[in-house]
Amino acid sequence: MEPTGRALPRPDAKRLGAMLDDLAELSDTDDGVTRLAYSTTERAAHDLFASWLRGLGLDVRVDAAGNTIAERPGSDASAPAIATGSHLDSVPHGGRFDGIAGVVAAVEVARLLVEHDVEHRHPFRFVAFAAEEGARFGQACLGSKAVAGLLTPADLHTYQDAGGVSVAAAMEAVGLEAGSIGKARWQPQDWAAFVELHVEQGDRLERAGLPVGIVDVVSGSTRLAMEITGRATHSGSTPMDHRSDALAAAAEIVLLAERTASDEDHAETRATVGVLNVQPGSITTIPGRATLTLDVRDVEGVRQRATAAEIVRTARDICARRQASVTSRPIGDSAPATLSPRLRQIMVDACQTLGLPYMTMPSGASHDAQMINHVVPTALMFVPSRAGLSHVPDEWTSTTDLAVGVDLLLRGLLEIDRIGGESADG
Amino acid sequence: MEPTGRALPRPDAKRLGAMLDDLAELSDTDDGVTRLAYSTTERAAHDLFASWLRGLGLDVRVDAAGNTIAERPGSDASAPAIATGSHLDSVPHGGRFDGIAGVVAAVEVARLLVEHDVEHRHPFRFVAFAAEEGARFGQACLGSKAVAGLLTPADLHTYQDAGGVSVAAAMEAVGLEAGSIGKARWQPQDWAAFVELHVEQGDRLERAGLPVGIVDVVSGSTRLAMEITGRATHSGSTPMDHRSDALAAAAEIVLLAERTASDEDHAETRATVGVLNVQPGSITTIPGRATLTLDVRDVEGVRQRATAAEIVRTARDICARRQASVTSRPIGDSAPATLSPRLRQIMVDACQTLGLPYMTMPSGASHDAQMINHVVPTALMFVPSRAGLSHVPDEWTSTTDLAVGVDLLLRGLLEIDRIGGESADG
Repeated sequence: MEPTGRALPRPDAKRLGAMLDDLAELSDTDDGVTRLAYSTTERAAHDLFASWLRGLGLDVRVDAAGNTIAERPGSDASAPAIATGSHLDSVPHGGRFDGIAGVVAAVEVARLLVEHDVEHRHPFRFVAFAAEEGARFGQACLGSKAVAGLLTPADLHTYQDAGGVSVAAAMEAVGLEAGSIGKARWQPQDWAAFVELHVEQGDRLERAGLPVGIVDVVSGSTRLAMEITGRATHSGSTPMDHRSDALAAAAEIVLLAERTASDEDHAETRATVGVLNVQPGSITTIPGRATLTLDVRDVEGVRQRATAAEIVRTARDICARRQASVTSRPIGDSAPATLSPRLRQIMVDACQTLGLPYMTMPSGASHDAQMINHVVPTALMFVPSRAGLSHVPDEWTSTTDLAVGVDLLLRGLLEIDRIGGESADG
Repeated sequence: MEPTGRALPRPDAKRLGAMLDDLAELSDTDDGVTRLAYSTTERAAHDLFASWLRGLGLDVRVDAAGNTIAERPGSDASAPAIATGSHLDSVPHGGRFDGIAGVVAAVEVARLLVEHDVEHRHPFRFVAFAAEEGARFGQACLGSKAVAGLLTPADLHTYQDAGGVSVAAAMEAVGLEAGSIGKARWQPQDWAAFVELHVEQGDRLERAGLPVGIVDVVSGSTRLAMEITGRATHSGSTPMDHRSDALAAAAEIVLLAERTASDEDHAETRATVGVLNVQPGSITTIPGRATLTLDVRDVEGVRQRATAAEIVRTARDICARRQASVTSRPIGDSAPATLSPRLRQIMVDACQTLGLPYMTMPSGASHDAQMINHVVPTALMFVPSRAGLSHVPDEWTSTTDLAVGVDLLLRGLLEIDRIGGESADG
């Protein structure tokens, strides 16, 4: 179990930056990167990824879900694969690093292996997942869910974007066969390990002054939509004590969610109201209706669901006191995922070999790694996000920091290769 | 000063209901009444009003601001006029009573006077004001402001609707000459008194079980737009104590406004956040930006401005604590208006003559009466609004209640005629 001491080629920050630049060009907007799930722009990014890896002499295929997978054979053709990668789609007006950092990291790893003739026993696979962001269809990680067998053809007809286009229709429009989605599923015996590099999307690493984080648990998420009905009356003629103000009730719920997730019993709980709409939305009318979304995340599943239930219960009391009514409707629920402890240890050992200070940390955001973890032992590592900005044009990770992450990723993948993955040969 | 004991003709609730029905037909939507300021539909309602009064043999004219004015001569051709009326436009998806009740009341008064050959000394004028609702152009009482000399041709080019159409352009499109707006101004020596009947738009009368309210003061309104900038970060990866949530700050401001206007030092103060928009508006992103409107109304002008300033000051503290920034920008300010005490007393005396229980009350909403009061002694009376609903399709006043109001209106106008108005001959 001693790590190899061998000197490995070092990633090139400039080359990483050039790839990030090339991918950022592929955007449907000038204000931030817009490369939505199953759009032609997302496919153009996949084509560019494929061309880079073909240029290195690797075989590249696109699966039924639109995931692009390149392979470099290892010395043992019967060994299961070790893989790395992330996604290439973005939210509307998003940044140039979320997902993309892990994809260009995979390309850089492939390039270093090829250019320096580094040998490995297992086949190495480099993956760009499709449609990770839930922004378009309300459902995240479509490509990696397909791989993990968590998506049916029927789901693809159910989920729609704001324009009423189903996932299936969007897939067909970019030349993918939604009906064949089952073929994208990974067979566990064919895969030994998956390691994803991602930007943190928070500011813990930056605050701690650490170059990398190794993720132990990925938060689950319980999501609700709430609708509050009060009375829309005139702002001038309705005394303060005769009101049933749906926005005031919603405001209490926003602060309730914040307060509930902030007490000492809720370390690692996060509760967010990200959407709030008010009707009729007139300066001189007390809002009669307010709709909002609640997203409760936790690394502890029981607490996650209990927190959401507690907020809903108290919201009912708030609304009753205000003579308003409230309904709540689940719009999503995923359990927290504990990633492979063995792979995590290998990544931690690799940090120590490289002399890299690190922290073990949970991931509040969901990632493709969370889905892949259902079928293949998975590790997830973070590089710092400047000021924790995420899903905005200002999202930033320095290529120097990213190169340090790729260094660790390469070292970790080769250590897994040396020690063996844990599913087929661990 | 003894009120006349003479028996007067009584208003007909069915006839009032039929007029309300005919006017409600003139709507651009089926879901509630939509008859926006300076629309062809508003003009159609003015045409119907004019046809009713011409049918009674009255002279009818339309002024440069689109106000429709009918006159029944009195026995003294040199006496200034006594007038009543209200407006015919509505908010989008509004009700069938706001403004309209006062217009059909005026028609019913005219009809009773004509059909029963009731004599009066002063000329009586029956007025339908144009463009009272601020919903289309963001500025209320355009027709009555023109009458009061509070509107310039330049204003008409400045104010625009959501589609970028200026008031001037909208006026020209319905055949009115915006450039001649100055001609609509009323000369004080030509008018003795104005009395407006309006639905309460609140529920004080209903709660008190009273058929009428006599208004002493019309609230002023100080309006602000606030913009809060926090940090849009990921709902999963941003710990609760590293957030700068613009919506949470806005929620505190909503509740601050409510609380500030509700304490014992703020009887008759009303503070409302009617508009709140959140960006980016994604389930999984902490809102980085929130915009809201604040409407502070009061019958006491100094307190009105002080309350708005206090809310803005505390909002700054709230945002500073949350590492967010806030800007606030005035979008409107009108002072409270004390209506004519003499006319109010005449209306109160008329209540007593008729044996009508009443309350003296402030008006939280602004009305044409508030503008007319700048140039002519003015009274304002309310009839009950069911459940206080206003600016919604369910707004309702029974025609029985309205008939009681018209009874009082007729009695009051004839008392003013007998005693004399206060500006020219009071």
